[in-house]
Amino acid sequence: MTSKAKAVLFDVFGTLVDWRGSVSAGLAAFGAARNISADWLGITDAWRGAYKPAMDSVRRGEIAWTNLDELHRGALATLLPKFGVTGVADADLDILVKLWHQLTPWPDSVAGLTALKQRVVIGSLSNGHVALQVALAKHTGFPWDMIFASDIFGHYKPDPEVYLGACKFLGFAPGEVMLAASHNEDLAAARKLGMQAGFISRPQEFGAPDERAKPAQDWEIVATSVPDLAAQLKN
Amino acid sequence: MTSKAKAVLFDVFGTLVDWRGSVSAGLAAFGAARNISADWLGITDAWRGAYKPAMDSVRRGEIAWTNLDELHRGALATLLPKFGVTGVADADLDILVKLWHQLTPWPDSVAGLTALKQRVVIGSLSNGHVALQVALAKHTGFPWDMIFASDIFGHYKPDPEVYLGACKFLGFAPGEVMLAASHNEDLAAARKLGMQAGFISRPQEFGAPDERAKPAQDWEIVATSVPDLAAQLKN
Repeated sequence: MTSKAKAVLFDVFGTLVDWRGSVSAGLAAFGAARNISADWLGITDAWRGAYKPAMDSVRRGEIAWTNLDELHRGALATLLPKFGVTGVADADLDILVKLWHQLTPWPDSVAGLTALKQRVVIGSLSNGHVALQVALAKHTGFPWDMIFASDIFGHYKPDPEVYLGACKFLGFAPGEVMLAASHNEDLAAARKLGMQAGFISRPQEFGAPDERAKPAQDWEIVATSVPDLAAQLKN
Repeated sequence: MTSKAKAVLFDVFGTLVDWRGSVSAGLAAFGAARNISADWLGITDAWRGAYKPAMDSVRRGEIAWTNLDELHRGALATLLPKFGVTGVADADLDILVKLWHQLTPWPDSVAGLTALKQRVVIGSLSNGHVALQVALAKHTGFPWDMIFASDIFGHYKPDPEVYLGACKFLGFAPGEVMLAASHNEDLAAARKLGMQAGFISRPQEFGAPDERAKPAQDWEIVATSVPDLAAQLKN
Protein backbone atom coordinates (compact mmCIF):
# COMPACT_ATOMS: atom_id res chain seq x y z
CA MET A 1 0.00 0.00 0.00
CA THR A 2 1.34 3.46 -0.72
CA SER A 3 0.71 6.26 1.71
CA LYS A 4 1.32 10.00 1.87
CA ALA A 5 1.07 12.26 4.91
CA LYS A 6 1.73 15.90 5.74
CA ALA A 7 2.66 15.02 9.30
CA VAL A 8 3.73 11.89 11.14
CA LEU A 9 3.06 11.85 14.88
CA PHE A 10 4.86 9.31 17.03
CA ASP A 11 3.97 7.42 20.12
CA VAL A 12 7.11 7.54 22.28
CA PHE A 13 7.27 4.89 25.05
CA GLY A 14 8.08 1.62 23.31
CA THR A 15 7.84 3.03 19.79
CA LEU A 16 10.93 5.26 19.99
CA VAL A 17 12.54 4.40 23.33
CA ASP A 18 13.37 1.20 25.20
CA TRP A 19 11.58 2.00 28.45
CA ARG A 20 12.04 -1.53 29.84
CA GLY A 21 15.81 -1.71 29.38
CA SER A 22 16.32 1.89 30.52
CA VAL A 23 14.15 1.84 33.63
CA SER A 24 15.32 -1.57 34.82
CA ALA A 25 18.96 -0.50 34.41
CA GLY A 26 18.25 2.72 36.29
CA LEU A 27 16.53 0.84 39.12
CA ALA A 28 19.39 -1.66 39.32
CA ALA A 29 21.92 1.18 39.52
CA PHE A 30 19.86 2.75 42.29
CA GLY A 31 19.75 -0.60 44.11
CA ALA A 32 23.51 -1.02 43.82
CA ALA A 33 24.10 2.51 45.16
CA ARG A 34 21.74 1.91 48.11
CA ASN A 35 22.81 -1.71 48.63
CA ILE A 36 19.29 -3.02 47.94
CA SER A 37 18.75 -6.29 46.06
CA ALA A 38 15.44 -6.84 44.28
CA ASP A 39 13.85 -8.12 41.09
CA TRP A 40 14.33 -4.81 39.29
CA LEU A 41 13.09 -6.13 35.96
CA GLY A 42 9.94 -7.46 37.64
CA ILE A 43 9.44 -4.10 39.33
CA THR A 44 9.87 -2.38 35.96
CA ASP A 45 7.20 -4.55 34.33
CA ALA A 46 4.82 -4.08 37.26
CA TRP A 47 5.48 -0.32 37.19
CA ARG A 48 4.62 -0.11 33.51
CA GLY A 49 1.63 -2.37 34.13
CA ALA A 50 0.26 0.06 36.73
CA TYR A 51 0.30 2.86 34.16
CA LYS A 52 -2.82 2.07 32.20
CA PRO A 53 -5.22 1.57 35.15
CA ALA A 54 -3.95 4.81 36.69
CA MET A 55 -4.48 6.73 33.45
CA ASP A 56 -7.90 5.17 33.05
CA SER A 57 -8.88 6.57 36.46
CA VAL A 58 -7.97 10.02 35.14
CA ARG A 59 -9.72 9.36 31.82
CA ARG A 60 -12.94 8.31 33.56
CA GLY A 61 -12.80 11.46 35.69
CA GLU A 62 -12.47 9.49 38.94
CA ILE A 63 -9.47 11.62 39.88
CA ALA A 64 -8.51 15.13 38.76
CA TRP A 65 -5.85 15.68 36.09
CA THR A 66 -2.67 13.95 37.21
CA ASN A 67 0.49 13.91 35.11
CA LEU A 68 2.67 10.89 34.41
CA ASP A 69 5.28 11.83 37.04
CA GLU A 70 2.60 11.83 39.71
CA LEU A 71 1.01 8.60 38.43
CA HIS A 72 4.44 6.96 38.26
CA ARG A 73 5.30 8.11 41.78
CA GLY A 74 2.10 6.76 43.32
CA ALA A 75 2.44 3.45 41.50
CA LEU A 76 6.05 2.96 42.53
CA ALA A 77 5.38 3.77 46.18
CA THR A 78 2.68 1.07 46.17
CA LEU A 79 4.76 -1.49 44.26
CA LEU A 80 8.10 -1.40 46.02
CA PRO A 81 6.93 -2.96 49.31
CA LYS A 82 5.24 -5.78 47.34
CA PHE A 83 8.69 -6.59 45.93
CA GLY A 84 10.25 -6.47 49.39
CA VAL A 85 11.78 -3.00 48.96
CA THR A 86 10.92 -0.82 51.96
CA GLY A 87 12.11 2.43 53.47
CA VAL A 88 12.82 4.24 50.18
CA ALA A 89 13.06 7.96 50.95
CA ASP A 90 10.72 10.47 49.31
CA ALA A 91 13.68 12.16 47.66
CA ASP A 92 14.70 8.82 46.14
CA LEU A 93 11.19 8.28 44.78
CA ASP A 94 11.51 11.65 43.05
CA ILE A 95 14.79 10.57 41.49
CA LEU A 96 13.38 7.24 40.34
CA VAL A 97 10.34 8.88 38.72
CA LYS A 98 12.79 10.87 36.60
CA LEU A 99 14.10 7.63 35.05
CA TRP A 100 11.16 8.05 32.65
CA HIS A 101 12.69 11.37 31.50
CA GLN A 102 15.98 9.67 30.54
CA LEU A 103 15.03 6.68 28.44
CA THR A 104 17.34 5.31 25.77
CA PRO A 105 16.12 5.44 22.16
CA TRP A 106 16.05 2.39 19.96
CA PRO A 107 19.18 2.57 17.78
CA ASP A 108 17.31 3.70 14.66
CA SER A 109 14.98 6.31 16.20
CA VAL A 110 17.01 9.52 15.98
CA ALA A 111 18.32 8.85 12.47
CA GLY A 112 14.84 7.97 11.23
CA LEU A 113 13.21 11.05 12.73
CA THR A 114 15.96 13.30 11.39
CA ALA A 115 15.48 11.96 7.87
CA LEU A 116 11.70 12.17 8.05
CA LYS A 117 11.83 15.77 9.33
CA GLN A 118 13.28 16.85 5.96
CA ARG A 119 10.04 15.80 4.23
CA VAL A 120 7.11 16.15 6.64
CA VAL A 121 6.16 17.65 9.98
CA ILE A 122 7.19 15.30 12.77
CA GLY A 123 5.72 15.46 16.25
CA SER A 124 5.30 13.39 19.33
CA LEU A 125 1.85 12.22 20.40
CA SER A 126 2.55 10.81 23.81
CA ASN A 127 0.85 10.44 27.14
CA GLY A 128 3.93 12.05 28.67
CA HIS A 129 3.47 15.64 29.81
CA VAL A 130 5.35 18.59 28.34
CA ALA A 131 8.07 18.69 31.03
CA LEU A 132 8.78 14.96 30.69
CA GLN A 133 8.86 15.11 26.90
CA VAL A 134 11.07 18.21 26.75
CA ALA A 135 13.56 16.51 29.09
CA LEU A 136 13.37 13.27 27.09
CA ALA A 137 13.93 15.07 23.78
CA LYS A 138 16.99 16.81 25.24
CA HIS A 139 18.26 13.45 26.54
CA THR A 140 17.70 11.54 23.29
CA GLY A 141 18.12 14.23 20.64
CA PHE A 142 14.66 13.69 19.13
CA PRO A 143 14.41 16.58 16.62
CA TRP A 144 10.69 17.32 17.05
CA ASP A 145 8.92 19.97 15.04
CA MET A 146 6.27 19.88 17.77
CA ILE A 147 5.71 18.09 21.04
CA PHE A 148 2.08 17.09 21.65
CA ALA A 149 1.61 16.14 25.27
CA SER A 150 -1.22 14.87 27.43
CA ASP A 151 -1.33 18.02 29.57
CA ILE A 152 -1.86 20.21 26.49
CA PHE A 153 -5.12 18.35 25.92
CA GLY A 154 -6.01 17.49 29.51
CA HIS A 155 -6.61 13.98 28.18
CA TYR A 156 -4.73 10.73 27.78
CA LYS A 157 -4.75 8.46 24.73
CA PRO A 158 -6.91 6.78 23.60
CA ASP A 159 -9.28 9.70 24.28
CA PRO A 160 -10.15 11.19 20.86
CA GLU A 161 -9.34 14.71 22.09
CA VAL A 162 -5.64 13.86 21.92
CA TYR A 163 -5.56 12.61 18.30
CA LEU A 164 -8.03 15.14 16.89
CA GLY A 165 -6.55 17.97 18.97
CA ALA A 166 -3.10 17.42 17.49
CA CYS A 167 -4.46 17.38 13.92
CA LYS A 168 -6.38 20.59 14.59
CA PHE A 169 -3.34 22.36 16.04
CA LEU A 170 -1.39 21.46 12.90
CA GLY A 171 -4.19 22.65 10.64
CA PHE A 172 -4.38 19.26 8.91
CA ALA A 173 -7.33 16.94 8.38
CA PRO A 174 -6.99 13.61 10.25
CA GLY A 175 -6.54 11.84 6.91
CA GLU A 176 -3.44 13.94 6.23
CA VAL A 177 -1.75 12.82 9.45
CA MET A 178 -0.21 9.46 10.30
CA LEU A 179 0.18 8.06 13.78
CA ALA A 180 3.27 5.88 14.06
CA ALA A 181 3.26 3.47 17.00
CA SER A 182 4.34 0.02 18.10
CA HIS A 183 0.96 -0.57 19.77
CA ASN A 184 -1.98 -1.86 17.76
CA GLU A 185 -4.58 -0.36 20.13
CA ASP A 186 -3.11 3.14 19.76
CA LEU A 187 -3.27 2.80 15.96
CA ALA A 188 -6.82 1.44 16.12
CA ALA A 189 -7.95 4.53 18.05
CA ALA A 190 -6.27 6.82 15.48
CA ARG A 191 -7.74 4.93 12.51
CA LYS A 192 -11.23 5.14 13.97
CA LEU A 193 -10.86 8.94 13.86
CA GLY A 194 -9.71 8.97 10.25
CA MET A 195 -5.96 9.17 10.74
CA GLN A 196 -3.48 6.99 8.90
CA ALA A 197 -1.66 4.32 10.87
CA GLY A 198 1.99 3.27 10.67
CA PHE A 199 2.95 0.21 12.72
CA ILE A 200 6.55 -0.07 13.87
CA SER A 201 7.32 -3.52 15.22
CA ARG A 202 9.40 -3.42 18.41
CA PRO A 203 9.78 -7.09 19.34
CA GLN A 204 12.06 -6.30 22.29
CA GLU A 205 9.71 -3.81 23.97
CA PHE A 206 8.32 -6.32 26.50
CA GLY A 207 11.29 -8.69 26.58
CA ALA A 208 10.58 -11.82 24.55
CA PRO A 209 8.63 -11.08 21.32
CA ASP A 210 4.94 -12.00 21.33
CA GLU A 211 1.74 -11.24 19.43
CA ARG A 212 2.00 -7.54 20.30
CA ALA A 213 4.93 -7.17 17.89
CA LYS A 214 2.68 -8.14 14.96
CA PRO A 215 0.24 -5.88 13.08
CA ALA A 216 -3.36 -6.58 14.12
CA GLN A 217 -4.90 -4.79 11.12
CA ASP A 218 -3.93 -3.86 7.57
CA TRP A 219 -2.21 -0.65 8.68
CA GLU A 220 -1.23 1.79 5.93
CA ILE A 221 2.40 1.05 6.75
CA VAL A 222 3.98 -1.87 8.60
CA ALA A 223 7.63 -1.18 9.37
CA THR A 224 10.51 -2.58 11.36
CA SER A 225 12.09 0.77 12.24
CA VAL A 226 11.61 4.52 11.82
CA PRO A 227 13.86 4.66 8.72
CA ASP A 228 11.85 1.78 7.24
CA LEU A 229 8.63 3.72 7.87
CA ALA A 230 10.19 6.80 6.27
CA ALA A 231 11.23 4.77 3.23
CA GLN A 232 7.71 3.41 2.78
CA LEU A 233 6.07 6.84 3.03
CA LYS A 234 5.66 7.94 -0.57
CA ASN A 235 6.08 11.69 -0.31
CA MET B 1 23.36 42.13 36.86
CA THR B 2 23.91 38.39 36.71
CA SER B 3 21.03 36.12 35.92
CA LYS B 4 20.38 32.40 35.76
CA ALA B 5 17.42 30.63 34.24
CA LYS B 6 16.32 27.04 33.63
CA ALA B 7 14.44 28.06 30.51
CA VAL B 8 14.47 31.03 28.14
CA LEU B 9 11.26 31.64 26.21
CA PHE B 10 11.36 33.90 23.16
CA ASP B 11 8.96 36.28 21.60
CA VAL B 12 9.25 35.65 17.86
CA PHE B 13 7.91 38.46 15.63
CA GLY B 14 10.49 41.23 15.79
CA THR B 15 12.64 39.54 18.42
CA LEU B 16 13.86 36.67 16.24
CA VAL B 17 12.57 37.47 12.74
CA ASP B 18 12.44 40.57 10.55
CA TRP B 19 8.71 40.59 9.84
CA ARG B 20 8.79 44.03 8.20
CA GLY B 21 11.50 43.26 5.68
CA SER B 22 10.12 39.79 4.95
CA VAL B 23 6.45 40.70 4.54
CA SER B 24 7.10 43.83 2.48
CA ALA B 25 9.39 41.88 0.16
CA GLY B 26 6.76 39.16 -0.17
CA LEU B 27 4.03 41.69 -0.93
CA ALA B 28 6.25 43.42 -3.50
CA ALA B 29 6.98 40.10 -5.20
CA PHE B 30 3.25 39.38 -5.30
CA GLY B 31 2.61 42.84 -6.77
CA ALA B 32 5.25 42.30 -9.45
CA ALA B 33 3.76 38.92 -10.38
CA ARG B 34 0.22 40.36 -10.58
CA ASN B 35 1.36 43.66 -12.13
CA ILE B 36 0.03 45.69 -9.18
CA SER B 37 1.89 48.76 -7.93
CA ALA B 38 1.32 49.89 -4.34
CA ASP B 39 3.05 51.17 -1.21
CA TRP B 40 3.90 47.68 -0.03
CA LEU B 41 5.97 48.90 2.92
CA GLY B 42 3.08 51.12 4.02
CA ILE B 43 0.71 48.18 3.69
CA THR B 44 3.08 46.05 5.76
CA ASP B 45 3.19 48.61 8.57
CA ALA B 46 -0.59 49.05 8.50
CA TRP B 47 -1.04 45.27 8.45
CA ARG B 48 1.14 44.86 11.52
CA GLY B 49 -0.64 47.83 13.11
CA ALA B 50 -4.00 46.11 12.72
CA TYR B 51 -2.76 43.10 14.66
CA LYS B 52 -3.00 44.42 18.21
CA PRO B 53 -6.57 45.80 18.06
CA ALA B 54 -7.72 42.55 16.45
CA MET B 55 -6.08 40.47 19.18
CA ASP B 56 -7.50 42.75 21.82
CA SER B 57 -11.01 42.02 20.51
CA VAL B 58 -10.28 38.34 21.07
CA ARG B 59 -8.72 39.02 24.48
CA ARG B 60 -11.76 40.99 25.62
CA GLY B 61 -14.01 38.17 24.50
CA GLU B 62 -15.78 40.34 21.90
CA ILE B 63 -15.14 37.68 19.28
CA ALA B 64 -14.56 33.96 19.68
CA TRP B 65 -11.07 32.48 19.48
CA THR B 66 -9.52 33.49 16.17
CA ASN B 67 -5.99 32.54 15.18
CA LEU B 68 -3.39 34.83 13.66
CA ASP B 69 -3.97 33.60 10.10
CA GLU B 70 -7.62 34.54 10.36
CA LEU B 71 -6.87 37.90 12.02
CA HIS B 72 -4.23 38.63 9.37
CA ARG B 73 -6.62 37.71 6.57
CA GLY B 74 -9.41 39.93 7.81
CA ALA B 75 -7.05 42.85 8.38
CA LEU B 76 -5.48 42.56 4.92
CA ALA B 77 -8.83 42.33 3.16
CA THR B 78 -9.83 45.59 4.87
CA LEU B 79 -6.52 47.34 4.27
CA LEU B 80 -5.81 46.65 0.63
CA PRO B 81 -8.62 48.81 -0.81
CA LYS B 82 -7.50 51.70 1.43
CA PHE B 83 -4.14 51.49 -0.33
CA GLY B 84 -5.79 51.37 -3.74
CA VAL B 85 -5.37 47.63 -4.21
CA THR B 86 -8.66 46.07 -5.28
CA GLY B 87 -9.85 42.80 -6.76
CA VAL B 88 -7.38 40.54 -4.97
CA ALA B 89 -8.68 36.97 -5.24
CA ASP B 90 -9.50 34.94 -2.12
CA ALA B 91 -6.85 32.41 -3.07
CA ASP B 92 -4.27 35.21 -3.23
CA LEU B 93 -5.27 36.44 0.23
CA ASP B 94 -4.60 32.91 1.50
CA ILE B 95 -1.15 33.00 -0.08
CA LEU B 96 -0.35 36.41 1.37
CA VAL B 97 -1.40 35.39 4.87
CA LYS B 98 1.22 32.64 4.64
CA LEU B 99 3.96 35.28 4.31
CA TRP B 100 3.85 35.33 8.12
CA HIS B 101 4.86 31.63 8.10
CA GLN B 102 8.01 32.36 6.07
CA LEU B 103 9.71 35.25 7.82
CA THR B 104 13.47 35.72 7.66
CA PRO B 105 15.38 35.47 10.95
CA TRP B 106 17.73 38.21 12.10
CA PRO B 107 21.25 37.02 11.18
CA ASP B 108 22.16 36.05 14.77
CA SER B 109 18.95 34.26 15.80
CA VAL B 110 19.59 30.64 14.77
CA ALA B 111 23.18 30.59 16.00
CA GLY B 112 22.17 32.14 19.32
CA LEU B 113 19.31 29.73 19.91
CA THR B 114 21.46 26.75 18.97
CA ALA B 115 24.13 27.77 21.49
CA LEU B 116 21.61 28.49 24.23
CA LYS B 117 19.88 25.12 23.70
CA GLN B 118 23.03 23.37 24.92
CA ARG B 119 22.59 24.97 28.36
CA VAL B 120 18.89 25.61 29.02
CA VAL B 121 15.45 24.75 27.73
CA ILE B 122 14.55 27.09 24.88
CA GLY B 123 11.00 27.67 23.74
CA SER B 124 8.92 30.13 21.79
CA LEU B 125 6.28 32.18 23.57
CA SER B 126 4.50 33.77 20.65
CA ASN B 127 1.04 34.90 19.70
CA GLY B 128 1.41 32.79 16.59
CA HIS B 129 -0.58 29.55 16.60
CA VAL B 130 0.95 26.08 16.47
CA ALA B 131 0.60 25.65 12.69
CA LEU B 132 2.20 29.03 11.97
CA GLN B 133 5.04 28.44 14.40
CA VAL B 134 5.77 24.91 13.18
CA ALA B 135 5.96 26.21 9.60
CA LEU B 136 8.12 29.15 10.67
CA ALA B 137 10.52 26.92 12.61
CA LYS B 138 10.88 24.66 9.58
CA HIS B 139 11.51 27.73 7.39
CA THR B 140 14.06 29.35 9.73
CA GLY B 141 15.65 26.36 11.43
CA PHE B 142 14.77 27.54 14.96
CA PRO B 143 15.79 24.54 17.11
CA TRP B 144 13.02 24.78 19.70
CA ASP B 145 12.79 22.42 22.62
CA MET B 146 9.14 23.45 22.82
CA ILE B 147 6.77 25.68 20.91
CA PHE B 148 4.32 27.57 23.10
CA ALA B 149 1.55 29.01 21.00
CA SER B 150 -1.52 31.16 21.58
CA ASP B 151 -3.94 28.39 20.62
CA ILE B 152 -2.49 26.06 23.25
CA PHE B 153 -3.62 28.57 25.87
CA GLY B 154 -6.66 30.00 24.10
CA HIS B 155 -5.18 33.39 25.02
CA TYR B 156 -2.94 36.04 23.50
CA LYS B 157 -0.13 37.88 25.26
CA PRO B 158 -0.21 39.90 27.42
CA ASP B 159 -2.87 37.74 29.08
CA PRO B 160 -1.20 36.13 32.14
CA GLU B 161 -2.49 32.68 31.11
CA VAL B 162 0.14 32.59 28.36
CA TYR B 163 3.19 33.37 30.52
CA LEU B 164 2.12 31.36 33.57
CA GLY B 165 0.80 28.52 31.42
CA ALA B 166 4.17 28.05 29.75
CA CYS B 167 6.02 28.02 33.09
CA LYS B 168 3.56 25.45 34.46
CA PHE B 169 3.91 23.17 31.42
CA LEU B 170 7.69 23.23 31.92
CA GLY B 171 7.37 22.50 35.62
CA PHE B 172 9.37 25.63 36.52
CA ALA B 173 8.50 28.52 38.81
CA PRO B 174 8.13 31.86 36.96
CA GLY B 175 11.33 33.10 38.60
CA GLU B 176 13.24 30.24 36.97
CA VAL B 177 12.14 31.26 33.47
CA MET B 178 13.26 34.23 31.38
CA LEU B 179 11.22 35.86 28.66
CA ALA B 180 13.44 37.26 25.90
CA ALA B 181 11.80 39.92 23.74
CA SER B 182 12.47 43.10 21.82
CA HIS B 183 9.27 44.66 23.20
CA ASN B 184 9.27 46.40 26.58
CA GLU B 185 5.54 45.83 27.15
CA ASP B 186 5.88 42.06 26.67
CA LEU B 187 8.71 42.01 29.22
CA ALA B 188 6.72 44.19 31.63
CA ALA B 189 3.85 41.69 31.57
CA ALA B 190 6.27 38.80 32.23
CA ARG B 191 8.04 40.63 35.06
CA LYS B 192 4.75 41.45 36.75
CA LEU B 193 4.14 37.69 36.97
CA GLY B 194 7.56 36.98 38.49
CA MET B 195 9.44 35.93 35.37
CA GLN B 196 12.88 37.23 34.46
CA ALA B 197 13.17 39.59 31.51
CA GLY B 198 15.82 39.71 28.79
CA PHE B 199 15.59 42.66 26.39
CA ILE B 200 17.03 42.18 22.91
CA SER B 201 17.32 45.48 21.06
CA ARG B 202 16.19 45.24 17.44
CA PRO B 203 16.60 48.79 16.11
CA GLN B 204 15.61 47.78 12.57
CA GLU B 205 12.30 46.15 13.53
CA PHE B 206 10.14 49.15 12.63
CA GLY B 207 12.49 50.74 10.10
CA ALA B 208 14.31 53.71 11.61
CA PRO B 209 15.35 53.12 15.24
CA ASP B 210 13.29 54.88 17.91
CA GLU B 211 12.57 54.69 21.64
CA ARG B 212 11.19 51.19 21.28
CA ALA B 213 14.71 49.87 20.69
CA LYS B 214 15.76 51.02 24.18
CA PRO B 215 15.13 49.22 27.49
CA ALA B 216 12.30 50.87 29.44
CA GLN B 217 13.17 49.17 32.75
CA ASP B 218 16.21 47.65 34.45
CA TRP B 219 15.64 44.29 32.81
CA GLU B 220 17.73 41.38 34.13
CA ILE B 221 19.54 41.31 30.80
CA VAL B 222 19.82 43.96 28.08
CA ALA B 223 21.33 42.50 24.91
CA THR B 224 21.95 43.37 21.28
CA SER B 225 21.46 39.84 19.92
CA VAL B 226 20.57 36.30 20.97
CA PRO B 227 24.25 35.29 21.31
CA ASP B 228 24.80 38.40 23.46
CA LEU B 229 21.89 37.36 25.69
CA ALA B 230 23.32 33.84 25.90
CA ALA B 231 26.72 35.22 26.88
CA GLN B 232 25.21 37.32 29.67
CA LEU B 233 23.19 34.44 31.10
CA LYS B 234 25.38 33.04 33.87
CA ASN B 235 24.54 29.36 33.78
